Amino acid sequence: MPHIDLKYKPGEDLICEFYLEPAKGLSIRKASEQVAAESSTGTWTKVFTEKPYMEKFAARVFSIKGRQVKIAYPLALFEPGNIPQILSSVAGNIFGMKSVRNLRLVDIHIPKGLAKVFKGPKFGIQGVRNILGVKERPLVGTIVKPKLGLETEDHAKVAYKAWVGGCDIVKDDENLSNQGFNPFLKRIIKTLEMRKKAEEETGEKKVYMPNVTAETEEMLRRMKFVEDNGGKYAMVDLITCGFSSLQTLRERDFNLVLHAHRAMHAAFTRNKKHGISMMVVAKLARLAGVDQIHVGTVIGKMEGGKEVIGIAEWLRNEFHDLKTVFPVCSGGLHPAHIPKLIEMLGKDIVIQAGGGIHGHRMGTEAGAKAMRQAVDSVVENIAIKEYAKDRKELGIALKQWKC
Amino acid sequence: MPHIDLKYKPGEDLICEFYLEPAKGLSIRKASEQVAAESSTGTWTKVFTEKPYMEKFAARVFSIKGRQVKIAYPLALFEPGNIPQILSSVAGNIFGMKSVRNLRLVDIHIPKGLAKVFKGPKFGIQGVRNILGVKERPLVGTIVKPKLGLETEDHAKVAYKAWVGGCDIVKDDENLSNQGFNPFLKRIIKTLEMRKKAEEETGEKKVYMPNVTAETEEMLRRMKFVEDNGGKYAMVDLITCGFSSLQTLRERDFNLVLHAHRAMHAAFTRNKKHGISMMVVAKLARLAGVDQIHVGTVIGKMEGGKEVIGIAEWLRNEFHDLKTVFPVCSGGLHPAHIPKLIEMLGKDIVIQAGGGIHGHRMGTEAGAKAMRQAVDSVVENIAIKEYAKDRKELGIALKQWKC
Repeated sequence: MPHIDLKYKPGEDLICEFYLEPAKGLSIRKASEQVAAESSTGTWTKVFTEKPYMEKFAARVFSIKGRQVKIAYPLALFEPGNIPQILSSVAGNIFGMKSVRNLRLVDIHIPKGLAKVFKGPKFGIQGVRNILGVKERPLVGTIVKPKLGLETEDHAKVAYKAWVGGCDIVKDDENLSNQGFNPFLKRIIKTLEMRKKAEEETGEKKVYMPNVTAETEEMLRRMKFVEDNGGKYAMVDLITCGFSSLQTLRERDFNLVLHAHRAMHAAFTRNKKHGISMMVVAKLARLAGVDQIHVGTVIGKMEGGKEVIGIAEWLRNEFHDLKTVFPVCSGGLHPAHIPKLIEMLGKDIVIQAGGGIHGHRMGTEAGAKAMRQAVDSVVENIAIKEYAKDRKELGIALKQWKC
Repeated sequence: MPHIDLKYKPGEDLICEFYLEPAKGLSIRKASEQVAAESSTGTWTKVFTEKPYMEKFAARVFSIKGRQVKIAYPLALFEPGNIPQILSSVAGNIFGMKSVRNLRLVDIHIPKGLAKVFKGPKFGIQGVRNILGVKERPLVGTIVKPKLGLETEDHAKVAYKAWVGGCDIVKDDENLSNQGFNPFLKRIIKTLEMRKKAEEETGEKKVYMPNVTAETEEMLRRMKFVEDNGGKYAMVDLITCGFSSLQTLRERDFNLVLHAHRAMHAAFTRNKKHGISMMVVAKLARLAGVDQIHVGTVIGKMEGGKEVIGIAEWLRNEFHDLKTVFPVCSGGLHPAHIPKLIEMLGKDIVIQAGGGIHGHRMGTEAGAKAMRQAVDSVVENIAIKEYAKDRKELGIALKQWKC
């Protein structure tokens, strides 16, 4: 069965863009053909069980430019609505083939025929903005820090300080779930109590994003508990939990905004020559139905260059009939970063700062104020240093941290 | 909070071994301390929300030898029984930190205190051998090929030919789930019918491993269907489905052997300087409760060197009170590979060959015979070429494929 046809014009296929370095002695043509075979209907040797009716299922390499290879996959190869199955095909065995020295799934183009069976985000950017009553500015969030070890009462107090200081959102960190020092159920009750108090005191809507990361049915129980106790959000570690469970959380259709943390992604997204790009993860996460996803910052403590901008744009653009997704920027952000961050990524972002708020030398409340002031300076179009002149918290933050 | 103590002697901690290349200008001491901080209780800056009672939760770098770094994590950091949470800690954000140029989680040592809450494998190697009635030799399996596109009746026929030829096991491929050309429920019924026929004709026990890969609750429905229809196995794509759902499948305690395919692993296991090793995946899969897992072949179409041997040994050794796991060798295997494969990996393995059986020029049944003959030659301690002299199928295979 031929797996290459450079004259082929893709129709309603799924298209994958790969970066491919062939193994020594192998042409890129041959290696890319083997990738197309292994990820669709072929294997390393001719088999005698092939049937003539199967020809229509072959994936075909239709473009090779340098090391950029494009492959078209007929939709019949995929089970509608099954993300793990899509990944097992186009991002499965192929990374381990001896025929390739390096292989990266750079991008994936999902046609309407495949996208339409997915629910996609329940709320999307507009839905989230409606919940918070924030029309245009970036949302300001924090992560309770230290990430692990705080007892429940202290966790809730830190959340309260962040909210009254000006944060819209408080979230758990990616490795906080249900440890002895801060059990999940107690944390939900105590932290939502503090949310109520902060809402009453500030007159603003506030949200708490508890991390439900666990075995699937336990996650469902935790989400139910959050919903029953008046929570509006759930956060899940998308990669360490996996796409099967992410789809399950969305299937249940809780009245909760779904926030996806991407812990572990850089194990396979960081090497620019091998693995899977964050763009691919973001696209599949939108199909599965997350309302928010971490995309990086360009600046800050985490690696991740200008591709962050492209991902954020894609999440906010139209994609068949699925709602938009809020790009979440996090990783070493502090107030001095904000003008540049918004210049690069626009106002439709969630800004998540942990150390950049709780590390403020006047404490969490002042740190949250400083961050909100930094955001307001951009919204009001006033230079941040100018804005800081009669705003003590921002002034201190800018002295404490520089860009 | 200090995250390094080179005099520290770990007790009942979880120990992680990393390969670490610091970012330019950063010492390995400093970079490894930052990794220990980010993966436990710290962040990029001092925060003012720390409490004195938290000191006991800090992960500590306790050994640095060249680029090999060992970190001890207090058990209190982890939620018992929650694999995604463990990964989000020790294999989460750290791969994306600017402080590291490359970072690989090479190995993980799980103390009894953490392992004891996991169910582990339901059957283990002995349980699987009991089901098949095969005492000592390697199990012989095949994957129905072509991997996608065969219609159900043809799929079942190929399975039948493989079983009567001598295969113990027939499995679906990693990207076959429930596509239109071969729907799951019909496939189970038709293929299990053929299994019964093959068992009657050969007098041997045979098993079919259907791929249940999907959204979690759909997987549970498929497993129930398999169990209700007399199936004894389920196969799942562990990485593309994820650990949350894998744990869920095991929690339900079906009377099914759980076989884990590792499609996508090489996106993060292949680069020896970055990502996560297959050993770590294998250890966590045993905790979660798989009975069989793909480990590679050393030889064949897939990359993967001698570390395969270490993984296979670990899976077969004692590990607290958890049962053993059958290492599955697959990827471009054919009969000529078998003596070397068994010499390297021993007899407690499952040999899975797709192309190396269905690519036999006399067809699937002869291919299965040849493979079984190859295994028997090793068991009977007769040189494979000698053994092939009066065994036509093996003779042809050895001519067709060479090592």
